[in-house]
Amino acid sequence: MTTSKDKVLEGRMQMKKVAIGQAGGPTAVINTSLVGALDAIGDKMQIYGIRNGYNGLVENEIEPLEGHLLQWVQKNKYVPGACLGSGRYMFTKDKISKAVQNLRKHDIHCLLFIGGNGTMAALEQVSIEAKAIGYDLQVIGIPKTVDNDLGETDHAPGFGSAARYVALAARDISKDLEAMKNFEKVRIIETMGRNAGWLAAASGILKNNEEDGPHLIYLPEVPFEQEKFLLDIQETVNAFGMATVVVSEGVAKEGCSQVEKRHVMGRKILGGISYELENLVQQELGFNARAENLGMNQRSSYAAVSDQDRLEAYAVGQKAGKLALEERTKVMVSINRTNSKDYSFYLSACPIEQVAKGGERLLSSEFIANRELYYNWLRPLIGSDIAPYPSALGKFSLNQTAD
Amino acid sequence: MTTSKDKVLEGRMQMKKVAIGQAGGPTAVINTSLVGALDAIGDKMQIYGIRNGYNGLVENEIEPLEGHLLQWVQKNKYVPGACLGSGRYMFTKDKISKAVQNLRKHDIHCLLFIGGNGTMAALEQVSIEAKAIGYDLQVIGIPKTVDNDLGETDHAPGFGSAARYVALAARDISKDLEAMKNFEKVRIIETMGRNAGWLAAASGILKNNEEDGPHLIYLPEVPFEQEKFLLDIQETVNAFGMATVVVSEGVAKEGCSQVEKRHVMGRKILGGISYELENLVQQELGFNARAENLGMNQRSSYAAVSDQDRLEAYAVGQKAGKLALEERTKVMVSINRTNSKDYSFYLSACPIEQVAKGGERLLSSEFIANRELYYNWLRPLIGSDIAPYPSALGKFSLNQTAD
Repeated sequence: MTTSKDKVLEGRMQMKKVAIGQAGGPTAVINTSLVGALDAIGDKMQIYGIRNGYNGLVENEIEPLEGHLLQWVQKNKYVPGACLGSGRYMFTKDKISKAVQNLRKHDIHCLLFIGGNGTMAALEQVSIEAKAIGYDLQVIGIPKTVDNDLGETDHAPGFGSAARYVALAARDISKDLEAMKNFEKVRIIETMGRNAGWLAAASGILKNNEEDGPHLIYLPEVPFEQEKFLLDIQETVNAFGMATVVVSEGVAKEGCSQVEKRHVMGRKILGGISYELENLVQQELGFNARAENLGMNQRSSYAAVSDQDRLEAYAVGQKAGKLALEERTKVMVSINRTNSKDYSFYLSACPIEQVAKGGERLLSSEFIANRELYYNWLRPLIGSDIAPYPSALGKFSLNQTAD
Repeated sequence: MTTSKDKVLEGRMQMKKVAIGQAGGPTAVINTSLVGALDAIGDKMQIYGIRNGYNGLVENEIEPLEGHLLQWVQKNKYVPGACLGSGRYMFTKDKISKAVQNLRKHDIHCLLFIGGNGTMAALEQVSIEAKAIGYDLQVIGIPKTVDNDLGETDHAPGFGSAARYVALAARDISKDLEAMKNFEKVRIIETMGRNAGWLAAASGILKNNEEDGPHLIYLPEVPFEQEKFLLDIQETVNAFGMATVVVSEGVAKEGCSQVEKRHVMGRKILGGISYELENLVQQELGFNARAENLGMNQRSSYAAVSDQDRLEAYAVGQKAGKLALEERTKVMVSINRTNSKDYSFYLSACPIEQVAKGGERLLSSEFIANRELYYNWLRPLIGSDIAPYPSALGKFSLNQTAD
């Protein structure tokens, strides 16, 4: 006699198996993409979760995404971080081979990864290795990056919220400096961005006039000239009595390589240019200056999540699930902007080898030259509820009757 | 013939003059207190604004708070920073004398200042000097501090929003670390607080269980023991695979004075203990650790403003305006907590000399020993809308029909 439980088990055995993982630096919405993919796949495939990114794939930390693990993922849909665990990982030929062997062990024929440039390049390598040994494997990439340096997509989830965080922080910290400008002249705010200035450039989007901070923004795409920098600061202080400066962690001083101030277990870590510029401003201009590294909050602040970013994070996950069911392979979900006046987007699949080949996408020279053009492009991504500080004008009665 | 304009001018000439200023580090709600005071005084006194705190008082940067300046203040009601300008200032006997002379020049007989401990001590000195030369002067203090180290009040505006910021950041950054714990083991988050641990201790209020970060909190009130610290970290990593640590900038290493890592124009600035602990953890335990200084966002983040904090900031300003009209002097507005089950408060006037005499108010030993007690005290202050991360549980259908 065949029980109902047997039928379910039999059904599962016939079902194609898919594994999903998260890789690289977390974002505030990467878990939303994960749930989006699960929702779309539903019970049409048997889903496995990969713990701790590519490391887990190589170490066979692969388990059915059900029971406690499923509940855990559900619980984390709106939580920052990466609830399956992520990490940074260097793939070697050996490890790629091990990864494919592990997938074969579990009879998994579809691999989904949420990540950035490195993740897409790794997916392609896994696909090539599988093909070489005659193992049937779909690979599908789900875009994610706070730096927005991923190609073949208009932008990637995670970026909108990070840009929002940077813009809010730069605005508020500049207001704070304005109050203290008789005591402190210069603040140098360091953002994430590595080689791409999308995030640093976003810091100016909430400015209403040139008096508002940030007053100066330095991008890794533009060669840094020390004399020009010092002149910019001096002129800004002359004009406004202060200068709020934003600098991408990827900016390198003239004739220098990028700053790697921190050493972790013998390995150098990018960052610290703001502290170098703080010293420079103090020594060369004699101004009281303060470096501020915005740090991990940029990629993890829940309060700064953009509603549009969250929506798109879910949508790209869903789309990847659909592509899995459609048996597509070697593709990444791509966000496309329609040409309509109001912002709207549609999703498509782009060849993953194009993404891997393209490398880091830098801020375009058009956006560097015309910042208003960039802000118009960016505005829909940082959230529909972004607004100037509310004003108390009109509610205030003092002296309104006099004169 | 007496015109209506003449009447207004005549009325003004008879009106008592009051000056108001902002001092010390800005907060996200200090401008709300300023507008509260103006609203309460209305057109019953002629109001002057003091630019740039006590420095402006000594340098005679005192001007009628009307026209453009009034519009500016109205516009800034909900804006972080201090819209009249603030600053840090060391009073000398000479300067106090100059301050009183300036008030006399303008015929100003009432002085309101929004600030913390230093501000209240300075107000008392100005009052004493005025009395000594026979100049009739009211002085009234409006409490403000993000550190919450001001005595004679249950708490001070600015603190609730800063505590909220710290709690949100510690929660989010811990979630981010959780995703990376196979790669990075320890994060050390540095908060403001100088000698008082109110802000650092606030970082744990959103924890739901002991697995959630922050796992360890170090306060300036508790002597730091290096061996114990390293043991704590090791045990936490053993238990959870990671450790999120919060440390107040005022914590000093065993046998050391407080860390003053930054030098600004030859002057040492408090801060940097997190970087020293990062090194210590790496060297002694061999863990990948990262220091994170939460920086100026703690006192200026608009997105983190607590609704209760904003309401109270306005209320203490209003109360100060009323005290001015009631001709009270040498008092600071004090927030009192009622004994009712649900949080409520009432305002009173406390002797400013008591505030000045009391010095910095530290976190009580009761709150240090019983953190839940502290969280219950703190909860109403960080805002009514603080909530756990939303969960997607119940909206998720995967595999719900199987088995």
